[in-house]
Amino acid sequence: MPISNLQQLLGHELEDLHSAERQIIAALPKMISMSTNEELTAALEEHLEVSQQHLERLDEISHTLNFSTSYTCKGIQGIITEAEEGLGKIDDPDTRDAAIIASAQRVEHYEIAAYGSAAAFAKELGLDKIADMLAETLDEEKDTDEALTDLAEGGLLSTGLNEEATA
Amino acid sequence: MPISNLQQLLGHELEDLHSAERQIIAALPKMISMSTNEELTAALEEHLEVSQQHLERLDEISHTLNFSTSYTCKGIQGIITEAEEGLGKIDDPDTRDAAIIASAQRVEHYEIAAYGSAAAFAKELGLDKIADMLAETLDEEKDTDEALTDLAEGGLLSTGLNEEATA
Repeated sequence: MPISNLQQLLGHELEDLHSAERQIIAALPKMISMSTNEELTAALEEHLEVSQQHLERLDEISHTLNFSTSYTCKGIQGIITEAEEGLGKIDDPDTRDAAIIASAQRVEHYEIAAYGSAAAFAKELGLDKIADMLAETLDEEKDTDEALTDLAEGGLLSTGLNEEATA
Repeated sequence: MPISNLQQLLGHELEDLHSAERQIIAALPKMISMSTNEELTAALEEHLEVSQQHLERLDEISHTLNFSTSYTCKGIQGIITEAEEGLGKIDDPDTRDAAIIASAQRVEHYEIAAYGSAAAFAKELGLDKIADMLAETLDEEKDTDEALTDLAEGGLLSTGLNEEATA
């Protein structure tokens, strides 16, 4: 199906995000099981819960705007494949925690860009209720990203270094 | 090669970014040729120029920290593949411009997340000069992302809508 106007482009953005959320929900349990830092584990568990709410919100939007819920988002697919391959090479738990944060922030930033565009398109089209729902998700994605940055800056990265320094 | 500490993980982040920049430099000319909005074309041309500087900065870092410059970043690969497939479906120039912004912001946000992690790892490792170089690139990626947001919010999205409304 060709895309000929902004509303059809919004539909494409939404099918992309629906796929992204489904892939993230499928991938997070593995990251949670690999995480050793308690705060990181808790942040990822919250991310999983929030992602399920974001998917429900997209399902609700799909009742108004018809879009495919069987598309595959190749952007998130690449980010998750890269994350799983990278994590598979790491043989130290503290280093793995640092890599999990780096991968999770790539996921968050993909979502921030995509929800930002979708919200702007919906607003431009005068679809105010949908724009508000997407903006709410966008704010929550930014909150998750900030929580991960706080974790990295708050000492998680130094755990392994300190152990190495005192070993 | 297994990754066993933060410095090796930083090397992995840098090889990933080196590949990302190379793929972005290869993909941007096609996006520039598809863009019809003059300001968008100018923003993408500037993005290309800045990306070349960022790649040179990574080459400079590779003289100090040894990392592969032949790795393939699957995250950016997925984002670019998705962008090219999506743009190929669009048969309206204004809608294509809006999609180019959405794709370019996904690219920017991937880079923001990856440079943010790499800069944090370098800082934690006490590699201050490298951390500063990565932070400088990070700031420039954020500037590009903001310029794209300004373009979307400054009327680019409404061009097609206005034409449709008056057609």
